[in-house]
Amino acid sequence: MILIADNLQITRPEIERAIADLNPAPIQHLVRCCQTAGAHMIDINTGPLPKDGGKNMAFLVETIQEVCDLPIMLDTVNPLAIEAGLQAARSKVIINGFSLEAHKLECILPLAKKYQADIIGYLLSPAGQVLRNADERLAVAVELLAEFENAGLNKESLIIDPLVVRIIWQDGHLQAGQVLRTIKDLPDVLGFEVKTVVGLSNLTAGAKGHPKRLVLEPVYLSMLAAAGLDMVLLDIFHPQTIAAAKAADALIGEKPFAWDE
Amino acid sequence: MILIADNLQITRPEIERAIADLNPAPIQHLVRCCQTAGAHMIDINTGPLPKDGGKNMAFLVETIQEVCDLPIMLDTVNPLAIEAGLQAARSKVIINGFSLEAHKLECILPLAKKYQADIIGYLLSPAGQVLRNADERLAVAVELLAEFENAGLNKESLIIDPLVVRIIWQDGHLQAGQVLRTIKDLPDVLGFEVKTVVGLSNLTAGAKGHPKRLVLEPVYLSMLAAAGLDMVLLDIFHPQTIAAAKAADALIGEKPFAWDE
Repeated sequence: MILIADNLQITRPEIERAIADLNPAPIQHLVRCCQTAGAHMIDINTGPLPKDGGKNMAFLVETIQEVCDLPIMLDTVNPLAIEAGLQAARSKVIINGFSLEAHKLECILPLAKKYQADIIGYLLSPAGQVLRNADERLAVAVELLAEFENAGLNKESLIIDPLVVRIIWQDGHLQAGQVLRTIKDLPDVLGFEVKTVVGLSNLTAGAKGHPKRLVLEPVYLSMLAAAGLDMVLLDIFHPQTIAAAKAADALIGEKPFAWDE
Repeated sequence: MILIADNLQITRPEIERAIADLNPAPIQHLVRCCQTAGAHMIDINTGPLPKDGGKNMAFLVETIQEVCDLPIMLDTVNPLAIEAGLQAARSKVIINGFSLEAHKLECILPLAKKYQADIIGYLLSPAGQVLRNADERLAVAVELLAEFENAGLNKESLIIDPLVVRIIWQDGHLQAGQVLRTIKDLPDVLGFEVKTVVGLSNLTAGAKGHPKRLVLEPVYLSMLAAAGLDMVLLDIFHPQTIAAAKAADALIGEKPFAWDE
């Protein structure tokens, strides 16, 4: 399981301030901590960055690259910021992401081709809404792949996010099961072993500090691993969840198990 | 997930002694603790009980029924002991279990028909050996169902155990994945939603007290839940594992989620 830290978010006041001041120190400190905690990749979640989007994203990518060589995920709906990030990046980048929404197909998807980047495709309606069940998600996945190939991209560059919703939603428990089924069925429906990712923090968003969260996250990540999930965006500072990801890898991974590794 | 306590085992000295002395107190104390810890069913694991098997199993069933109304699982290869347990039981019983081994087909399987009990079918070779992968397990499941229906039993009474092996075995990590795939594929292969069970304690047997066990068990149980597992035999005094089972139920269960239940 590839662990992508979702901790670098502009919604955190110290990060918002660091970006506004173009001050690298708080960002570099956070990124180092993410790497120490086990992150394999860093998500840069800047929101839309309406002002100086290109300059700010380039600053973030360069700032991170100064202290860490982990791959980077560019997490914004602002195409200018994405392109600036792609230009600043020295190694592998994943664009996060596109969907069937017209402006994303027009403005974001072509950047994946231009810069030969992998890109996350969200299973959302063309209006950007969460789908109701696995069948709707799988139908959108078929359309998404068609758009992807029409745009001249190699399907190996597509990473599908079936969209985890908050468990507290009225149909949250049903959606959790439908996401599992979507991940299980995607390879058969699309005809190849498409890579998958989810944003795990969404499951328990709004319940920070609730003790149940400490159980729900690792359990759901284990279930997702069993369904075939490849990558997860998560709070890398949740040790129980990271331990579960490692245990799931040990249980169904390539290497013979050893108690003392 | 139906939680079946595997704690009542003749391999525990205090239980062995209680059976030898026909002393109900230690057994009743253990069973009460299992119920408090969340058990939905009690497995009576007596080994083969070569001496006084019938008398001892009847004693155990009656002793348990005096203090608890949980369903009982009769876990022995001794057909006389199973029959005595079936006769002593006042409520639902599961026989644990049979396989393609000839003596079990001849001597144990017919008891399920005679007493209208559910019965666990192990996915083992006709010689009683562990199978190498999911394909072999699924092929045996087909044969097991055929034997089951030939014996005049209703397929709804069959519970399949794909056999979890120790993770520390040379191919333990591969077997863990093959068990997951077996559980996922069984409904398609057999053509109905066959119930499934595993013995979870097998996974980490021999590693009592190892801290990794505290992570591996709940993670693997979560993965099994995602694959569709219905019932689990486990050490009911592992709180992390029980918490994971409950979280998995909450995540993909029937009831809307609530943080404070």
